[in-house]
Order: sequence, then structure tokens, then C-alpha cells
Amino acid sequence: MSSTSLRCVLLSTTLDLRGYLAQEMAKLDGKVTFVDHLDGSDPADVQMAIGWHPPADAFDHYPNLKAVCSIAAGADSLLHCPSMRDGIEIVRVVEPAQAEMMSGFVAWHAISHQRQMGVYRQQQRDKIWQRQPQRSAADVPVGILGYGAMGARVAADLTTLGFPVKVWSRTAKPTTPGVLGLSGVDGLDRMLDDTEVLVNLLPLTSETRGILNASLFAKLRRGAYLIHVGRGPHMVDADVFAALDSGQLSGAAIDVFHVEPLPPDSPFWTHPKIALTPHDACDASMTAIGKTIRATAESVQAGVKPKDTVDRARGY
Amino acid sequence: MSSTSLRCVLLSTTLDLRGYLAQEMAKLDGKVTFVDHLDGSDPADVQMAIGWHPPADAFDHYPNLKAVCSIAAGADSLLHCPSMRDGIEIVRVVEPAQAEMMSGFVAWHAISHQRQMGVYRQQQRDKIWQRQPQRSAADVPVGILGYGAMGARVAADLTTLGFPVKVWSRTAKPTTPGVLGLSGVDGLDRMLDDTEVLVNLLPLTSETRGILNASLFAKLRRGAYLIHVGRGPHMVDADVFAALDSGQLSGAAIDVFHVEPLPPDSPFWTHPKIALTPHDACDASMTAIGKTIRATAESVQAGVKPKDTVDRARGY
Repeated sequence: MSSTSLRCVLLSTTLDLRGYLAQEMAKLDGKVTFVDHLDGSDPADVQMAIGWHPPADAFDHYPNLKAVCSIAAGADSLLHCPSMRDGIEIVRVVEPAQAEMMSGFVAWHAISHQRQMGVYRQQQRDKIWQRQPQRSAADVPVGILGYGAMGARVAADLTTLGFPVKVWSRTAKPTTPGVLGLSGVDGLDRMLDDTEVLVNLLPLTSETRGILNASLFAKLRRGAYLIHVGRGPHMVDADVFAALDSGQLSGAAIDVFHVEPLPPDSPFWTHPKIALTPHDACDASMTAIGKTIRATAESVQAGVKPKDTVDRARGY
Repeated sequence: MSSTSLRCVLLSTTLDLRGYLAQEMAKLDGKVTFVDHLDGSDPADVQMAIGWHPPADAFDHYPNLKAVCSIAAGADSLLHCPSMRDGIEIVRVVEPAQAEMMSGFVAWHAISHQRQMGVYRQQQRDKIWQRQPQRSAADVPVGILGYGAMGARVAADLTTLGFPVKVWSRTAKPTTPGVLGLSGVDGLDRMLDDTEVLVNLLPLTSETRGILNASLFAKLRRGAYLIHVGRGPHMVDADVFAALDSGQLSGAAIDVFHVEPLPPDSPFWTHPKIALTPHDACDASMTAIGKTIRATAESVQAGVKPKDTVDRARGY
């Protein structure tokens, strides 16, 4: 990194990035100068940003911005910001440990369904000693929508745990041993057919918006279990409730919603077949966020394209 | 198998073995004749038994018994039967899918602890949207007591999920990559030191009875989580409650108890830090039980030692 300090603006409407990133920012002291949005300093000096749900017009203020770092694997709040323009590289946090955390979260819900862990919890409350008929993981086919870093890790780990795993991705990709990879429209139907646990790990794009709908649920095995860890707008809320109420879905673990935080009057909170988490299936660790910021700053200073950038055409 | 039908007696005080095993017994029709205990037929003709908590004097009645099959991985109700004698081979059900089922069960509880899944459940009840600080699996060291077929599978799978894993066994054994194997008295202390999730998969022997006691708990990391899937008498009940109440243990998943079914007035039912299951962490599948019975019958008829027998000196 050169001796000139790089100026990096913090852009968020929902998070105190200066507080959140304090420790990592301190490590870059002297190398990167962090400025707040519209703080009076010359915006033309700003070459880099860190963003998370930025103000709609944020990027209009910084004519010389080269790159903006997300603080997580998802970068859609940057990509879909109205003032985002070509020429600004959007950088995601790619972290093996984050995929591992997602994988543990998904495995927990898959096993909860396979082993009927909720039944045991109720039995304990009722002081009922009753063994439950057991199904091995081999009896519970899993289908995974999305096969990026997260999907690949989830698929590999669930395979290790004994679940039969099919994955679907937009374009055909090589898969690890034991994982059946499918793609395209026909591939999607083949993946859904007889799937009992459906895991959604797709990125949010115009093509995937609303993909978790009645027509898709109808293609799964009756009594299927949904693990939704993508983005809120992937799901058609009314269709999720209808499928749960008809029994087409036996339950759902839902981590992401159209509106977050979820409003107190949302029916998601109280539905007895829904296990809800506050968009927390996996956070990036601070170590990984810091590393991404450092690497991006170095790339911007060196005048080269940063690593782990979003492909604008693909949308993720 | 010879054309002479082998006589096999069913010995259980707690289970209707004829009903439980009906399907597998039908498959052996003509090859094995199943008789009930003291049914009037000549006990001297009986060469094989299937046993699960047999009557105390059961084996005294059958002078020519060569082998008795358990219906699970555990065979202690046969080994410790007062009328058990040398010369009767005790056969366990060894099944890879059973180890896999155990592994999924243990992984579920380990992840529950790592990811604070109980906190999310409570938050949903209270309609609280609050992300929880995340620890990766790498921050949660697991120690496993026992490294047989079950322990090996659990250790390998938890390693895959990112947990650092140490195992302890009576005698030194080779371990799979990434698993630290320890043995002996010094090894036990080294295994317990800094362990946050302790999994008990030991067989029940005179040496392991009462091993889950205050002195052992004190050697774990403060706030450790106990996953007890061995046998009830491994634990000193009062010490478990004391450790939970002092905070030395932050919680416990307990599947096995001194008295089963657990009496309705047992404090295990209602302790807020205990997740209780009815000795159901893993059952043998009927397929595996049937296979073990068939293989044992063939060995007895051929006059050879059956596979998967209990080592009487070791006690498992």
C-alpha cells in the first residue's frame, strides 16, 4: 500500500458502521482515512466506500469512487441502490467460516425435521417417555437452490451427515462427490421432485424473486420442510402460509423476510409450524470483514480490480 | 445354513420381542424356530437367544446356548444378567447407519449450544428481533468420551462441521485426520481441559460407572455443555444438577437415565437447562437387527464364533 492515505466513506442508513467496524478501522490507521457521509470533506477525494443499505442517492456524491465493500456475503442493498453506477466495483465478504456457519445452521434444521426434535421437546414438557420411530438421514432427500460458496458447503456437509442431496443452480456447475447437480428449468423440476427438505440459498435477482411460491411447493414431497436462508423477496408470503396450512409443507425455518426487522404484527412470529430467526443464519466474522476491507483498499490504491466483486449482469 | 432348524429363544422382561421382530422372524421361517421362554419345549434344544433385559435366571434354563443377540449396539443388560455365563457369545448390533443417526443427534445438540438456538426460540415467543453475536464452530472445542464405531463417526462428522475435536478412549487408538486421540488417566485430563461440549459415548463398565461427576465437570471449560448418550449409571445425578445450578455446565442434553422409563417425579423432566430424550438418540434399524440375527444363526449352525461379539474382559 502506498504512503498516501486512501479516503473511504461509510454509507449506511441502518447500521452505525463506525461503531461496528471500530476495531478493524483502527488496524488501518494511517493507511485508510474513514470519513462519514456528507461530513464536509471533499467528496472528490473519496475512492472507496463501505456500504450497507446506503442512502438512495449516496453514490451520486462521490464521482471518483472505485469500489464499495459490503460487510457480508450479500451485496444486494448496494447493487440495487438507485445511485449505483457502472465503474464502481461492489465487493462481497467471502469467508469459508461463514459458509461453515450457514452449513451448521441448515444442518440443525434438517436434523430437527428428520429426528422430530420438536416432538421430544413437547414430550418433555408433558413428561411423556415415548420413543419415536426413526428415519435415517438417507430417507430424507434434501434439495438446495443455489450452489455458490454457501450452497457447496451445505451440500457437502449434509452429504457427510448421510442426507441424499440434489442441488440446483442457474448454470451447470461441477459438484462434489455424492451431490447431484442440476440446472435450467427442467433441472429445477427434477431437483424439486421428491425433495423433502428444501434449502433456499439463491441470490436475489429478477429471476429468483418470488421463486418460493405455491407452484414450487406443490412439486416437493408432501409434508416437505422449507429452510429459507436466502432473501425475503424470494418468498410469496401468502403461499408459504397456505402450504403450511394445507400440509404440503410440514414446517419452515425462515431467517429472512420482506421487511426487516419483522413488524410485531407479522403472522410469521406466531405460526406454530414456523421457526423464525432474525436474519442471523450466518454473519460474517469481524476478522473476515476486516480482511476484505484491507484487500479492497490495497487493490484500489494499486489501481487494480478488487477480488470477490459482484458480477452486475448476473446480479450477485 | 443346514436344513435343520435352529431353535432360538426370545428373552425379554421389557419388550414383546415376538411382536417387535415379527417381520425379521418371518424371513427366517424354516431356518430358525423361535420359541418363547419356558414355553414347555425342551430347553436343551435351544442353541441361540435374542435378549433385551432378560429375566435374571434366564440363561440357567438353556444348557446348550451358544450365543445371544442384543437388538441394539448396547448389550449390558445381557452382560450383567446374573445367569450369564462364559461360553455364551454376546452379539451386538453394529450398524453404520446407527452411528450416523447418533452423529446427527450429537451434531444437533452441539450446534444448538454453539448457535444458542434456544435463545432464538425464546425471542420468537417474545417477538424480539435481535441478532446474536456469533461464534464459529472453531471456537467451541468438543471432547468425546469413547472412540468405538459411534465415537469415531461422531468425531469425524463434528470435525467436518468445523468443531475442534479431542477424543478419549481407554486404550490408545488411531484417529481420523483432525481428531486428537488421547487415552489413559493423563490423557483424560488433557481431553477435558478447555473442552466446551462434552459428549459421552462410553460403554458402561465398572471403570466408567459414575464417570460423569463433579470432579470431571470441574475440569471442563466454564459453562460447558454435556451431551450424555451413554448409559444412565455413567452419571452422578446430583453432580449434574449441582454443575448446572453453579453454571459450571450451561446446559445438558440427556438421553439415558438410571431408571428408564424416567419416573414422572424425576427432576430431570423440569430442569430448565436440560433437554431430555427417551433413550432414543439412536435405535438400530430393523434391517440391521435382522441382519445380525441371521448372521448369528448361521455362525451358530456352522459352529463358528459369531461376528460383533462382546469382549467379556473389556465389558463391551
